[in-house]
Amino acid sequence: MAMPRASLPFPRSEYLRRVTAVKSEMERRDVEVLVVTTPANITYLSGYTSKSAYVPQGLVVFLKDEEPTFITRRMDEPAAIHQMFIDRSHVIGYPEALIANPDRDGYDAIVDFILDSGLSRKGIGLEAKFLPAVTIEKFRSRAVGARLVDCSNDVSWIRGVKSDLEIAIMREAAAISDAGMLRAQEVIRPGTCEAEASAEIIATLVRGTNGLPGTDVAGFFLCATPRTSTCHIRWTEDVFQQGSQINLEFAGVRYGYTSPLMRTMSIGKPSDYILRLHEGEVAGLEAALDVAKTGQTCSDVAVAFNTALKKHGFDKESRCGYAVGIDWTEPTASLKEGDMTILKPNMTFHLMLGNWINEDVGYVISETFRVTNAGGEPFTKLPRQLFEI
Amino acid sequence: MAMPRASLPFPRSEYLRRVTAVKSEMERRDVEVLVVTTPANITYLSGYTSKSAYVPQGLVVFLKDEEPTFITRRMDEPAAIHQMFIDRSHVIGYPEALIANPDRDGYDAIVDFILDSGLSRKGIGLEAKFLPAVTIEKFRSRAVGARLVDCSNDVSWIRGVKSDLEIAIMREAAAISDAGMLRAQEVIRPGTCEAEASAEIIATLVRGTNGLPGTDVAGFFLCATPRTSTCHIRWTEDVFQQGSQINLEFAGVRYGYTSPLMRTMSIGKPSDYILRLHEGEVAGLEAALDVAKTGQTCSDVAVAFNTALKKHGFDKESRCGYAVGIDWTEPTASLKEGDMTILKPNMTFHLMLGNWINEDVGYVISETFRVTNAGGEPFTKLPRQLFEI
Repeated sequence: MAMPRASLPFPRSEYLRRVTAVKSEMERRDVEVLVVTTPANITYLSGYTSKSAYVPQGLVVFLKDEEPTFITRRMDEPAAIHQMFIDRSHVIGYPEALIANPDRDGYDAIVDFILDSGLSRKGIGLEAKFLPAVTIEKFRSRAVGARLVDCSNDVSWIRGVKSDLEIAIMREAAAISDAGMLRAQEVIRPGTCEAEASAEIIATLVRGTNGLPGTDVAGFFLCATPRTSTCHIRWTEDVFQQGSQINLEFAGVRYGYTSPLMRTMSIGKPSDYILRLHEGEVAGLEAALDVAKTGQTCSDVAVAFNTALKKHGFDKESRCGYAVGIDWTEPTASLKEGDMTILKPNMTFHLMLGNWINEDVGYVISETFRVTNAGGEPFTKLPRQLFEI
Repeated sequence: MAMPRASLPFPRSEYLRRVTAVKSEMERRDVEVLVVTTPANITYLSGYTSKSAYVPQGLVVFLKDEEPTFITRRMDEPAAIHQMFIDRSHVIGYPEALIANPDRDGYDAIVDFILDSGLSRKGIGLEAKFLPAVTIEKFRSRAVGARLVDCSNDVSWIRGVKSDLEIAIMREAAAISDAGMLRAQEVIRPGTCEAEASAEIIATLVRGTNGLPGTDVAGFFLCATPRTSTCHIRWTEDVFQQGSQINLEFAGVRYGYTSPLMRTMSIGKPSDYILRLHEGEVAGLEAALDVAKTGQTCSDVAVAFNTALKKHGFDKESRCGYAVGIDWTEPTASLKEGDMTILKPNMTFHLMLGNWINEDVGYVISETFRVTNAGGEPFTKLPRQLFEI
């Protein structure tokens, strides 16, 4: 029995729409074949979410072909046949001899495929910024005479504007984020170990909500007293105390799409300083969402946030957000002063208002939203509270 | 109040021993300063496990300094002060202006630090194989006249041989893997959703066992009928059926150290074919462990496995294991025919016997072990069964 096709999160027409948009950019850049290696971009153009990117793999988009071709390790071929919208003839497994082999690797299989398919005089596009130097050198030395074009963020910019179908999936992910945060409120108690609470919250993120499970565990950070000035620690073996503050950041995931969410919790009454910071941040959050409408820039949103926060007597050093979608951060637009990216409907951002002020003070709040003509529309529904436990 | 130091998993002397071993290799390669960028190598040399590697960061080891210096994003400085054995004066945060900036990034801060520290005529070592071409070019153009030396796997080879202190931590991680697999046996039932079972198993991996929590969630794969020929799928929304086969791969984690474990489960009696494959694989596992003693080669272990499996009428295409430790796979030795790495005491491997034979048949079993003079000594204690549920 051949491997069955999974029930895909999007119809074939949606994947073809995306591939067509990429081809149109390829035409513009005079690129005949694009080698997509960023995992999130592969997911975007095919549906594939299997975790095989620790070895070389590439989705090869030829202008001449309706469907891309995926070159992957032989053992990952069945997962690709299962999860990708493309015909199984477009999934090519390379042999195990290319694994842990200092002379030839999976990128050689990709070069072979391109050379066998025949190249005209147009260029080969690579996501060069994310590739090791030796890999780029391999393309240069083996595809003799071909023009290599740096297309590092081309697909990422295209996926920056979501379809309504993608927005629906991101809402599903956001509902899981909300469920996780509500679970956190239930399980964070004095005397409970950080790991025990994390186990319960993460289980909720996997279980999902409304009958829709999470499909992955994304980044998860629980930074509690005395570590509230840290931002990327998983959790520790410490036990919560009366007076502990807990900064949480995590995301529900559906088919790769993440909708991150941050909230601060406090066991007992927070300090006046933290309460004032919370007020300033919520004011900034609301100001930012008001401005985040079609036609404004990323910079405008950051200015709105920073201005509102400053009125409350605070500053935030880091950018106040970034484009978000498959696999969390998109390496494109940032909500920061000076980023002149013009907002379009259905661009999605993590309005990330974590503010780590000094070694004693950190506070977090965030929402994932989409751009609309009327402003930023958050996906999560959780109250903008500093949760007191 | 300054950020307190965490209770570290190893004494200072252990970290200094590792740094000294790296410096000795640097001397041999005529390298004056080594820029360590692989997250697992940073963990090895400092204790840092915070998840900030999505932006540039580097642990800079100078021959002249007792302790390395960590250059990281400003917001991650407190986590480094907390988790690293080094003095806080050796943690340097670079400003937010280097984030999402097309002209200068965190690697510029690293180059600045090296140039400011003064360079003699010895080389700068880089983990070049894992760095983007633009980053290497940055070192080349800014550290004018310096000789760049590719030290990609130097630290990884050094950490291949564990200390007894590290072995103790890997045993703790293995006990968590065992607990996860026992939990899987309890929660995998006909009618249960794959996501629900995964939530319970992952919660166990976070909670840990024997009062020792897991410290991270590593890779987690649940590949059930009809996907038993896949190997890197998280889980799906499907419900287990009578007759379902479930292939599991996951790892307990302690302070970055992982001890992966694979087992196959079956709801109801497995087919005769799968039972025969199981017998062959267990025979191969035992043969491999017998041979995995000091002085033998990786190739010898693979030959022992392959020979035993062949006697049962089966082959396995992929390598039968790889060096394992911090962050799972070490990019060094492989248990495959032709890998002439000589086994030393306390080298640790994941004897990974997943065998994905065709689109219908996949079976998995594995153990994480250390090399001893008497053979491979597994860390996990789970019976080598095909678990029938």
